[in-house]
Amino acid sequence: MKLLGIAVIGVGNMGSRYAGILADSPWAHLVAVADSDERRMTAISTQYGVQGYIDYRTMLQDEKGIEAVAICTPDRAHVEPALLAASLGKHIMVEKPLATTIEDGERIIRTAADARVKLMVGHVLRFDPRHIQAYEAIRNGAIGEPVHIFCRRNDTAASGQIWRKRSTPVFFLGIHDVDVMRWLMNSEVVRVCAEGKSAEPGGPVGQDSVGAVLRFANGCFGLLEVSWLLPPSMGRSDLRLEVLGTKGAIFVQMHDRGLEVHSPEGLVRPDTILMPKVHDHVTGILRDEISHFLECVLRDKQPAVSGEDGLAALKIALALTESLRTGMQINL
Amino acid sequence: MKLLGIAVIGVGNMGSRYAGILADSPWAHLVAVADSDERRMTAISTQYGVQGYIDYRTMLQDEKGIEAVAICTPDRAHVEPALLAASLGKHIMVEKPLATTIEDGERIIRTAADARVKLMVGHVLRFDPRHIQAYEAIRNGAIGEPVHIFCRRNDTAASGQIWRKRSTPVFFLGIHDVDVMRWLMNSEVVRVCAEGKSAEPGGPVGQDSVGAVLRFANGCFGLLEVSWLLPPSMGRSDLRLEVLGTKGAIFVQMHDRGLEVHSPEGLVRPDTILMPKVHDHVTGILRDEISHFLECVLRDKQPAVSGEDGLAALKIALALTESLRTGMQINL
Amino acid sequence: MKLLGIAVIGVGNMGSRYAGILADSPWAHLVAVADSDERRMTAISTQYGVQGYIDYRTMLQDEKGIEAVAICTPDRAHVEPALLAASLGKHIMVEKPLATTIEDGERIIRTAADARVKLMVGHVLRFDPRHIQAYEAIRNGAIGEPVHIFCRRNDTAASGQIWRKRSTPVFFLGIHDVDVMRWLMNSEVVRVCAEGKSAEPGGPVGQDSVGAVLRFANGCFGLLEVSWLLPPSMGRSDLRLEVLGTKGAIFVQMHDRGLEVHSPEGLVRPDTILMPKVHDHVTGILRDEISHFLECVLRDKQPAVSGEDGLAALKIALALTESLRTGMQINL
Amino acid sequence: MKLLGIAVIGVGNMGSRYAGILADSPWAHLVAVADSDERRMTAISTQYGVQGYIDYRTMLQDEKGIEAVAICTPDRAHVEPALLAASLGKHIMVEKPLATTIEDGERIIRTAADARVKLMVGHVLRFDPRHIQAYEAIRNGAIGEPVHIFCRRNDTAASGQIWRKRSTPVFFLGIHDVDVMRWLMNSEVVRVCAEGKSAEPGGPVGQDSVGAVLRFANGCFGLLEVSWLLPPSMGRSDLRLEVLGTKGAIFVQMHDRGLEVHSPEGLVRPDTILMPKVHDHVTGILRDEISHFLECVLRDKQPAVSGEDGLAALKIALALTESLRTGMQINL
Repeated sequence: MKLLGIAVIGVGNMGSRYAGILADSPWAHLVAVADSDERRMTAISTQYGVQGYIDYRTMLQDEKGIEAVAICTPDRAHVEPALLAASLGKHIMVEKPLATTIEDGERIIRTAADARVKLMVGHVLRFDPRHIQAYEAIRNGAIGEPVHIFCRRNDTAASGQIWRKRSTPVFFLGIHDVDVMRWLMNSEVVRVCAEGKSAEPGGPVGQDSVGAVLRFANGCFGLLEVSWLLPPSMGRSDLRLEVLGTKGAIFVQMHDRGLEVHSPEGLVRPDTILMPKVHDHVTGILRDEISHFLECVLRDKQPAVSGEDGLAALKIALALTESLRTGMQINL
Repeated sequence: MKLLGIAVIGVGNMGSRYAGILADSPWAHLVAVADSDERRMTAISTQYGVQGYIDYRTMLQDEKGIEAVAICTPDRAHVEPALLAASLGKHIMVEKPLATTIEDGERIIRTAADARVKLMVGHVLRFDPRHIQAYEAIRNGAIGEPVHIFCRRNDTAASGQIWRKRSTPVFFLGIHDVDVMRWLMNSEVVRVCAEGKSAEPGGPVGQDSVGAVLRFANGCFGLLEVSWLLPPSMGRSDLRLEVLGTKGAIFVQMHDRGLEVHSPEGLVRPDTILMPKVHDHVTGILRDEISHFLECVLRDKQPAVSGEDGLAALKIALALTESLRTGMQINL
Repeated sequence: MKLLGIAVIGVGNMGSRYAGILADSPWAHLVAVADSDERRMTAISTQYGVQGYIDYRTMLQDEKGIEAVAICTPDRAHVEPALLAASLGKHIMVEKPLATTIEDGERIIRTAADARVKLMVGHVLRFDPRHIQAYEAIRNGAIGEPVHIFCRRNDTAASGQIWRKRSTPVFFLGIHDVDVMRWLMNSEVVRVCAEGKSAEPGGPVGQDSVGAVLRFANGCFGLLEVSWLLPPSMGRSDLRLEVLGTKGAIFVQMHDRGLEVHSPEGLVRPDTILMPKVHDHVTGILRDEISHFLECVLRDKQPAVSGEDGLAALKIALALTESLRTGMQINL
Repeated sequence: MKLLGIAVIGVGNMGSRYAGILADSPWAHLVAVADSDERRMTAISTQYGVQGYIDYRTMLQDEKGIEAVAICTPDRAHVEPALLAASLGKHIMVEKPLATTIEDGERIIRTAADARVKLMVGHVLRFDPRHIQAYEAIRNGAIGEPVHIFCRRNDTAASGQIWRKRSTPVFFLGIHDVDVMRWLMNSEVVRVCAEGKSAEPGGPVGQDSVGAVLRFANGCFGLLEVSWLLPPSMGRSDLRLEVLGTKGAIFVQMHDRGLEVHSPEGLVRPDTILMPKVHDHVTGILRDEISHFLECVLRDKQPAVSGEDGLAALKIALALTESLRTGMQINL
């Protein structure tokens, strides 16, 4: 089988994981990586024995074997490499969120469509067996008609300390949930109302905790809770999705993971879902997501998460942000 | 020790439990019961060997030993017996909610104050050790400053089938939560926004599921989820209260109860909290609540849940109902 | 109602709790307390405003109002006060275990019988609503015929540090379970086999962890796990009882308690079962146990846990200890 | 990359899953399948478009492309195809248990060694991220020195109805646990004592429930509970592994899986671990196990579970069976 030539743009937290998975994939050939942080770039390119570039533009120009790119730069920096890659005919996988403004999101979608390249947004929960089977159970009528959905993505304070300077609970955490909500409820969000708070006196509303109600076009509603305040003694995030229907209910939780390790340093719940290692190979849902993208390109299939999906999630996240800013209900 | 002479007005679901606990109490003398449903009244008065009346007015006039009353009539029918009892100088315990309109609630409070009788509203969670210790932990700074509170009171569909014709999730379930929210967050609610749905096409908004965000005067916020759609295979309600703070978090859950019985009929989680029986005596938080009222009267103490508390909860429940009706954010 | 005059012998960990509950009981009059540790005795007698004695013999002789005693001395020191109290015609409540040798246990039973006084052993789980309802569900056939029972009483390392010098997991923890096993399985234990380990190299077998299988006369079997090694990050004990039957199953757990408080000091699960405080009064199963004893004396009823029950539990605990010592299966 | 030619012998419950995973594997070429049940064989061979054989001996002779076999026949029928395949120079993956007698197990190991083919036993938990990370945490000293291990594998009554006629809880369920116990405790079992019961009056001891204590050479001990009596309302198995150490503890559970679907038919917890489907591909630990075997053959590595591991687990299972039969402690 022919391998897909692929490069990773941005090899920080997520990008370095992509590189590792692609280097180990039976379907891909990792051609090169690019990162404006030279030290990081060198570390990863050395680790996987591939070319490294400080400027992704040079890489895209020079490396002829690149057929697709994975874009893992900071949220704001998705749009430029996406547009360039698309215009050069490279297939594109973008980490979530697709972009940070509606205009950017729309440009990426349009450019990819014009160039007839695949565009997939990395909403990884769509590749989680729990969420997939929840989706199928709903579609199969297992719970009758859905009535309302509850999503919680409460992260640890340790994570909050890292991310509160660069992002918000809505964009860093909630973007996952609003995508899943649309997907599972099979309807668009038409109205949101959010309340939020900072853990610091005078900090921006919604800096650390956000609660919201969302109304869907089909009359159902959603509750969203996102926060990064969980204390270290919990040893975990609190990640729940629950759908109540007229004849049943579905409960998904991603945080327990079936393993607790209590050592003198406290409680740790090692990752068994996202990218656990099994006898020298990374397994888990991130690999399954990336494999899906590779397969879509190699076999000309439609990616399970489209640019339009990414854009719709972005619109809801922006409406929530606006509701927090104004203290008012927002119609979409 | 002198026993307090007390009568129960309304001996349906809750009133019959009150009667049983009062008949067994070392501090009370159950004098009589009243209920407009003659069969029910006869059953209970016979069971406990006390006088029974169809008309509570006759009872209050005829029975000289009545020093206090417990009012367990339907929500709408709290106000009349409360006003009469107070004006006759009887101490009053009213099941939640205090009343169904603000005017009625205010009249009860005023009349009781004028008559200098004790008035307590039966928000039973205030007598639950879990909630009391959550309250104390917050007051003692265990979690730093509270940031947000989440309350869920999702009841079984079986319960919903009974109650959806007579009440709403907000009034039947949510009234507990809004009282607890005010109490734990130590602040008044200033703004609410609710979304809801009926499980029946075209049914009234919020008939079966309600989600809401609430803003407190101190800048904190709350999330409320109430529903009576849980399927029978769950064998339980889903009752949670969670407070995230700047330095910690508190989790209360009332539904697991430490006991599951799986029989061929399915899963049952017997009550071990509200009024379990222990060697011929009813124990649990309902008894503790009633004992507290008896003690407040006998020893002239202030009840832990005042008429004003009951009124404040009522105001929030009415605002949530208004938000559901209009589809808009409501300021209190 | 006449109050029962009662004294507490031994006011350490458990005895001080007994004193507090008796001082607050509507059925008892706490007459005096005795403890060979003068400081402890003085603290408790002062706190409740009663006479204090260093020598319980003096107390039993001098205080004419004592009709019953609660014996909360160390395990080994139950027998002497029990025999003296019985011979003086005082009713007796003894903390578990009844005694530490079969001979002592039998003497207490015989002496109490000869003196025609009530004798009750403080197996407090018999007063827990979870266990009572598990018992009733089994008796009512909810799970068909019981097949096997699993009991775990794994305590925290902090507790182990205190108790491992004075007792063993079998006697301090397992005595609860073997009593409950006999009670729920409604059959006597005929054979046991235990394995154990010390957490210290070369420490006595079973000093910190014990596992055992037990066979009942009716052919059912039990699994017992007792330990005091749980790390502090768990913030709790691990207390489970599970019965599998031919048509169902019962699960009891006593450790979650419905409340978690995460503060900077770590996770705490406050007591909501044994003796939580509710508006100035201690409630919970210890009070219900003590109230039951008071009622049995005042109304001449049979205590729910007899001396014979206490003796049977003791015999099993001794057989487990023997199995650990010899490394062999032991027949009872 | 060259693909490994492989055949599946026995395509019942497990074998059909192997066939599906191998047909989808990027490292394998599924050459043929064999099953003495013609209908089953035809169904699977047709589904994956490969040759089918009623007699595996014919298949091994005729199909030149077979380099390895997966043996998924009933327990008793592992030995013959294993010996033949090995003697023909085929690499061998055998489903657990390796064999049903020590002699058979030893012959398989010896024959494979003589033929210099890879031999791996399908103890799938060794490929579960939870168990792998538990193993690594213990090896890294996270819990200090292990003291005791608890394993429970209580299956549903529905599963029991199928398997109790063909196997026993010890062989069908407990074989997993005894392998994991040896692996995690890093020591051999030297002594066991088991008790058991049948759910039918007069049925063989241990037919439906078994409890046991096991002593390891290093002084640690284990508790084992296996049963197939869980009632349908539980909607799941109860699968736990817990290790308490001198400085910490590890808890693994495999049954919750992060997903509950409550429909009018009751509670279902779909598989998210063993072989869930993600966008047309089977993922999960069974695939990871099979991939590991393929890699070991293709790259000449040592399989993570050796024939000796399989034999050691078998010896413990036989000792437990002997203890149940005789009612006595058994030394290994």
